[in-house]
Amino acid sequence: MYTQFCMSFRFAVEATDGAARAGRLWTPHGVVETPIFMPVGTQATIKGLTPEMVHTVGARIILANTYHLTLRPGDVLIRDLGGLHRFMHWQGPILTDSGGFQVFSLASQVHVSDNGARFRSHIDGLLLELTPERAVEIQENLGSDIAMVLDECPPAQASREQVEQAVRRTILWAHRCRNSQRRSDQALFAIVQGGLYLDLRQRCAEALIALDFPGYALGGFSVGEPPEQMYAMLPVCAGLLPPNRPRYLMGVGRPEDILAGIAAGIDMFDCVMPTRNGRNGQAFTSQGVLRLRNACHRRDPAPLDPACDCYCCQHFSRAYLHHLFAADEMLGPILLSLHNLAFYLRLVRQARNAIFSGNFAHFHGHCLSTWRQSTDSMA
Amino acid sequence: MYTQFCMSFRFAVEATDGAARAGRLWTPHGVVETPIFMPVGTQATIKGLTPEMVHTVGARIILANTYHLTLRPGDVLIRDLGGLHRFMHWQGPILTDSGGFQVFSLASQVHVSDNGARFRSHIDGLLLELTPERAVEIQENLGSDIAMVLDECPPAQASREQVEQAVRRTILWAHRCRNSQRRSDQALFAIVQGGLYLDLRQRCAEALIALDFPGYALGGFSVGEPPEQMYAMLPVCAGLLPPNRPRYLMGVGRPEDILAGIAAGIDMFDCVMPTRNGRNGQAFTSQGVLRLRNACHRRDPAPLDPACDCYCCQHFSRAYLHHLFAADEMLGPILLSLHNLAFYLRLVRQARNAIFSGNFAHFHGHCLSTWRQSTDSMA
Repeated sequence: MYTQFCMSFRFAVEATDGAARAGRLWTPHGVVETPIFMPVGTQATIKGLTPEMVHTVGARIILANTYHLTLRPGDVLIRDLGGLHRFMHWQGPILTDSGGFQVFSLASQVHVSDNGARFRSHIDGLLLELTPERAVEIQENLGSDIAMVLDECPPAQASREQVEQAVRRTILWAHRCRNSQRRSDQALFAIVQGGLYLDLRQRCAEALIALDFPGYALGGFSVGEPPEQMYAMLPVCAGLLPPNRPRYLMGVGRPEDILAGIAAGIDMFDCVMPTRNGRNGQAFTSQGVLRLRNACHRRDPAPLDPACDCYCCQHFSRAYLHHLFAADEMLGPILLSLHNLAFYLRLVRQARNAIFSGNFAHFHGHCLSTWRQSTDSMA
Repeated sequence: MYTQFCMSFRFAVEATDGAARAGRLWTPHGVVETPIFMPVGTQATIKGLTPEMVHTVGARIILANTYHLTLRPGDVLIRDLGGLHRFMHWQGPILTDSGGFQVFSLASQVHVSDNGARFRSHIDGLLLELTPERAVEIQENLGSDIAMVLDECPPAQASREQVEQAVRRTILWAHRCRNSQRRSDQALFAIVQGGLYLDLRQRCAEALIALDFPGYALGGFSVGEPPEQMYAMLPVCAGLLPPNRPRYLMGVGRPEDILAGIAAGIDMFDCVMPTRNGRNGQAFTSQGVLRLRNACHRRDPAPLDPACDCYCCQHFSRAYLHHLFAADEMLGPILLSLHNLAFYLRLVRQARNAIFSGNFAHFHGHCLSTWRQSTDSMA
């Protein structure tokens, strides 16, 4: 079954520059050039944007959340309506997470055993169970191109014993996820846990690599630890993963974190920041972060980001965006979400080009220095 | 000055069918085919939609609110930034109301005298004054293509004495608005008040027609009176207006009200219903009104309106729209606002075609009967 599956899923590294890689990922719903950023469509929608807008700003693969979708509207309902792609009208590839992270962060009365997680829904308090087998079943019902194994993601302040336990379960569950796969048109990625303990990361990676998954993720970063610790761990952890498989850094992060990940050899990223921060009036620009609610933008006729070709920057002034947020108008969050995604997707595209040109390190340094120019006094 | 102005503004009736008219309106920002529906952009944005979306669904002229924009961000700021068209990136014609209706419905501590209205802002409680001269000045600062005179709009339950007083002031203020006009590229429309008193409507219309305005509106409908009373008054009131001038029925209304207006010889309409009701999960369709929050839509793979070619109906199921509203996702209000505007704009386009074909009465009857077919049990 897995061999069959391999026919519709393939990954190739096309260029390297230091540890950074430019690659290409073939999926049943299309080809993705890496490094890539995946906009987050938690509840089968990228908040505030039509799929057409998401595609227009350059997104080629998106992420959806197993936990949210199985609670509402239900994975069987989505299957019966033709799968997630048709349901939300996204024609490109979709990656679904396993729901584990959301259970630990959103649900209440969570009880974890080797069998899986029992918890109460954050929507209606219903008692539910998420096992490795169920996580795969849900994702097969959703019909995503890439599914994730169920893992246990310990918080940043977890003890070594807790992290060790999480690594053991993550390996156990990866086996069970693998054994319960039924669909041949879905790639299952494994997740390496281990927190900030390099030996645990290594133990986890080795056990998972022995199972030869089509892709590997690094979990448990961006869970509250200082960025410096993640930056220190990333190159080592990425180096633990097979070079001929896509590497996915889950839930990370700020633009500077994405560049650090690419420098370390990561190929795939996802984060709610561009849309969440956009809804709150914060814009990522080539000159740094701008907060559009700040009074300094009230009369500013300049575009949000003069270096951006998105619909927002081509047609609207900072003064208009400030007005939209002051007046609590939906179009403010819409335009800033659109721009922020355009910014993230341009960033990974430019990083890819820099890798091909062999000047990624220069590009990386240039970005970090220009992002400090922000004219927004509060930024 | 007025003669000069007339050069960039012109109206022609191209066909009639009973009292219904198909016409053409030339403005400094483009030509509009009538009858037309104007989406409402209260705070310089059609709520939830980009100007591109608004144009795509067929809108050719939009409305903005003087009262809201002078409070926030301020008419002088908009003027200094190049006017309302540039500020909100709407390249077609814009009509602005005078702010009178909003003062009476939104502001607090309203005190009206022959000089104008004094009131407190609903945003920050600031004491403000709106005189006829100021209403024109604000609209000239905004730079709309069509401005409205300041009028006094009495509520449905007003006594005859109150309505008589409002008519007297409306005529007085129309004179003063006219005399304070400075811009030659803006058409000033007069507003006929008089409530449900035909003789007062007649008195008001005659006084205003003597001033030869480039367009005439009927105000004071849809303010709480039963629709039957409006339907009875409309043909008579429309008949009071010069046949060679555009006729605008302010703030009306439901699809059936728009058709009643067109039948009576009205050319222009505006209403918040398509966007406001869309945000609340209510869709206008060729089969009647649907409420997407209703559980009956939970598993329905059908498009919202099989007869609609809008982006929402082409790509999404009722089940998906139900999910978006159940999950409180922004995309629900966005897609329903988009669809409802497409519905309204298709309706006036079809009405126009029916007038040219001489079968408007048949079209009118057909619409009213098919709108009763709704499958939505709660509708």
